[in-house]
Order: sequence, then C-alpha cells, then structure tokens
Amino acid sequence: MDKKALVEQIRKKGSFLCVGLDTDIKKIPKHLLDCDDPVFEFNKAIIDATAPYCVAYKPNLAFYESLGMKGWEALQKTVDYLRANYPDQFIIADAKRGDIGNTSSLYARAFFENMGVDALTVAPYMGEDSVKPFLAYEGKWVILLALTSNPGSHDFQFTEDSDGERLFEKVLAKAQQWGTTDNLMFVVGATQGSLFSDVRRVAPSSFLLVPGVGAQGGSLEEVAKWGMNSECGLLVNSSRGIIYASSGKDFAEAAAREARMLRDHMTILLSTNGII
Amino acid sequence: MDKKALVEQIRKKGSFLCVGLDTDIKKIPKHLLDCDDPVFEFNKAIIDATAPYCVAYKPNLAFYESLGMKGWEALQKTVDYLRANYPDQFIIADAKRGDIGNTSSLYARAFFENMGVDALTVAPYMGEDSVKPFLAYEGKWVILLALTSNPGSHDFQFTEDSDGERLFEKVLAKAQQWGTTDNLMFVVGATQGSLFSDVRRVAPSSFLLVPGVGAQGGSLEEVAKWGMNSECGLLVNSSRGIIYASSGKDFAEAAAREARMLRDHMTILLSTNGII
Repeated sequence: MDKKALVEQIRKKGSFLCVGLDTDIKKIPKHLLDCDDPVFEFNKAIIDATAPYCVAYKPNLAFYESLGMKGWEALQKTVDYLRANYPDQFIIADAKRGDIGNTSSLYARAFFENMGVDALTVAPYMGEDSVKPFLAYEGKWVILLALTSNPGSHDFQFTEDSDGERLFEKVLAKAQQWGTTDNLMFVVGATQGSLFSDVRRVAPSSFLLVPGVGAQGGSLEEVAKWGMNSECGLLVNSSRGIIYASSGKDFAEAAAREARMLRDHMTILLSTNGII
Repeated sequence: MDKKALVEQIRKKGSFLCVGLDTDIKKIPKHLLDCDDPVFEFNKAIIDATAPYCVAYKPNLAFYESLGMKGWEALQKTVDYLRANYPDQFIIADAKRGDIGNTSSLYARAFFENMGVDALTVAPYMGEDSVKPFLAYEGKWVILLALTSNPGSHDFQFTEDSDGERLFEKVLAKAQQWGTTDNLMFVVGATQGSLFSDVRRVAPSSFLLVPGVGAQGGSLEEVAKWGMNSECGLLVNSSRGIIYASSGKDFAEAAAREARMLRDHMTILLSTNGII
C-alpha cells in the first residue's frame, strides 16, 4: 500500500487508528481456549469487530514467537485473513528486526515476500546497510525506531553529540537519506509529549507510528497537537486498551466500543486540523 | 551454561571458535535438497564434523525465518540435536531482539524456555527495560550489540557526546550496571581492529562475541591481540568460511578442515597468552 492509498483510508474512515494485535494466550477469554487455534479465533473476532474504525493492524511478533510453531501459524492465518477480507487495511509486523546487509535481506524476504505484510518495524542501531534491504521492496515500508515509548528510551536515544543533535534526531535525519516518505516511517512513542515538535522539525512529512496511547499513558490530544501534519502523518496504535477491553464473552463488542471511541476522537482531531 | 564452564571448555579444546549456522537453502550442496529437511541435515553434518574444534554454535534467525514454518522447525531440531549430542556446546540464537519490557519478556520465554538456547543477541537501542527481562533467567545470557562488524556501524555507534564518550562505549558502560560478566556479553565486530582496546578499557572482564573474521575481513590475530583477557574473554564466530568451504559432497569434511585450522591458530594464541 502506498502513502496516497493510506491517506485516502484515513480520510474515508476519519481514523488514524492502528489496532495492536498483541495477543497473549494467557489474557484471552477462557471460552476461546477450547478452539483449535485460540489466538487466531481471538484475532479474527477482534478484526471483524474493529475493522470499521481503524486503518491498520499491528501484530507484535513476540506474542506469536513465544508460542513457538503454533504462534507462527496463528500469525500467518491472521495476516491471510486480513488480506482476504480487509484488503484496505495496512498490516505492520512489529518485529524490530535489523542485521548486517545480507542478513537483513533474508528478514525482508521472510516478512514481505512470505508473510505478506505491508510494513516492518526495524531497529536502527546497525545503520544503513541493516535498513536498506527492506527499502528495496516496491510498495513496502520500513518503520524505523526513533524515539520509543518506554522508560529505557532515555538510556541512549537522547545521547547528544557536540553539535547538540540527539541520537533520535540523528536517526531521523540520516534515515531520510536512505528512504523516502513513501517507504519509510518512524516510531515515536506517545509518551514523549512535546518532543513530537522536535521530531516534526527533522521529519515534517514522514508518517509516524505512535505506540503508547492508553496503557502506557500517552495522550491522543497531545500527539495530534504536536505530531499531525497536512496528510495526518500519524498512525496511533492501541493494543491492550482495545483487545482486552473485556475478558468475557463480549470481548469483541467491548473492543469495537473502545475502537469506535478512539475513532470518534480522531475524527474530531482530523476535522479540527482541516484534514477532513 | 555459566562462565566457569565456558572457560573450561575453551581451555580443554584450545579453541574459542563459534560456528555460525547461517544456513541458506540456496547455498547448501544440491544433493541435500532431496532430503525431507535439507537445512537440518546440513546443520547436523556440519555439527558432527566441527564439534571437536569449537565451543559454540550460533544460528542466525534470519536464515530460518526466511523459510517460514519449515525454517523454525529445522532450527528447533538443530537446537535439540545439539542439546542431546553435544551438551557442552554453548548455543547462541542470533536474533537481535529487543522491545518494551513486557514484550521482551515474551521473547525471553520464546528463546530461553521454549527453544532452549543458552544465549540471545539483543539490540540496545530501547535501553534498560528492553534488556533486563532477558537477564532474569538463571544460567542464560544476553549478548548485547555494542560495536558491530558492518559498514553501517559507523552511522550511529560512534556518536560522541560532549564528554567524548561514544555511543558504543555508553552501551558497554550502562549495560554493565544491568547485568554481570556471568550473564552479559557484548558483540564487537572483528573488523573494528584496534578499537578492541577501547572496548577492553570499558569492559575488561566481559566476554565478547566477535563476528566478522573471514568473509567480512577481520583478522583473528588482531582480535586476540587487543581483545583477549585472562579468561580468554572471546568467542570468535565464523560462518560462511566454515559452512560453505565446499559446495560438493565433501562439504562436512571441508568444514571440519577449516574449523580445525582456526582451532589450531586459536590454540597458539591461547598458549601465547598463557591461558592454556
């Protein structure tokens, strides 16, 4: 999916919501555990319930890898289900991969060719040759970690060089020489508040994937205030707040309710900013 | 496996060689492609041939993920085969994982509990809470990226703050507050030459996993000269130079020959440095 199509979806749905499919077998409703593939059944129900209110889904690989082979199977089935039934949804594999050049090529093959997702999160520490192989795929996206939402973001990402440039700013600046706003986004955590304006100074036109709204404490209003650009330029992710809104048989309805509430809020923000 | 046992193996075998199982289905001898599981058959033969000359094996996850479910199966069989037949070998999953705290816990479960490896490579960009969950496992190791072997290492890892501390030095220094020399190693590329002495200034007692000897151009002599400490403190990895030494039916013998040559060289270096 290219940027034009993504922006079109955002306008059409009045939403820049990404639903995080961080499906933990220990947290899904008990009645699903009798199914053949409880993780897939859970995802399927969540997707059917939330698809009208979001433009993207983001399974985090850790949740699937922790289940071994069965987890990978559930993930592939989830991606296939999305592709078949909701072809307009943008699918992000949140895998935070990255390795030396020839090895990154293999990860690219794994996620873009075999699994068939639209985008992959990538870690920047190893630099250009670890990122570029992912950018070689027409119509696919790298979403590079820049300023993450967790406490540990303060350990290295703010390291300031003698010119006053912080590491996350260096990542934003350098990476834009490797990719374009049509194949490269950045992860910026919702918990970083007004730092969004610093991000926008360096990367005014890039799309940002924003985790950390909800359970991690970030505010949607703040994110939109500092981070939104004329094409919206934001995909705001919510995982736990939506998918575990209820642990009962009504989990899908509860997820829909939460997603719809976020969508309604997003519609107002998009409208206030003249995007719809 | 704890540090004492690892050092014991190094002394006993006169080797600090790690064989990289970067098994690419496109590069293995053609006659194996008729097997049920060519990747596992290849690994098994390589392991049987090289085990006398090395102390560790390091499958890189990208090679297995790129084959989808069959790749994961081949990897698990490889780990199980090592555990059953060569219990003294140190097994490293080269996966370069790392995510926010609760998500890293799931990766730790995947690799330490389910897959059963001894160590996992981890990317440092997301800081403390992304690394710590891996350190909570008794007898298991984090191998944190510090100074990698690839050209892209120059993009961010040398970023110097106003005190003259470079990012890789900051990673080395900070991480030692999170783990000990008994559960934390660092990746330092063989291509970095005399920078090993800078690494040793900050991390004198840590084990270092050293990729980049051979195909990537690093020199074993240089690495030992600058990087070896009184317990050896090095695991030097070679992948392509060993496992693809021949593309014919003699691939295992050729791999054994290469591994033995490296072992012989390592024995001299260990002896010169008074370790054996």
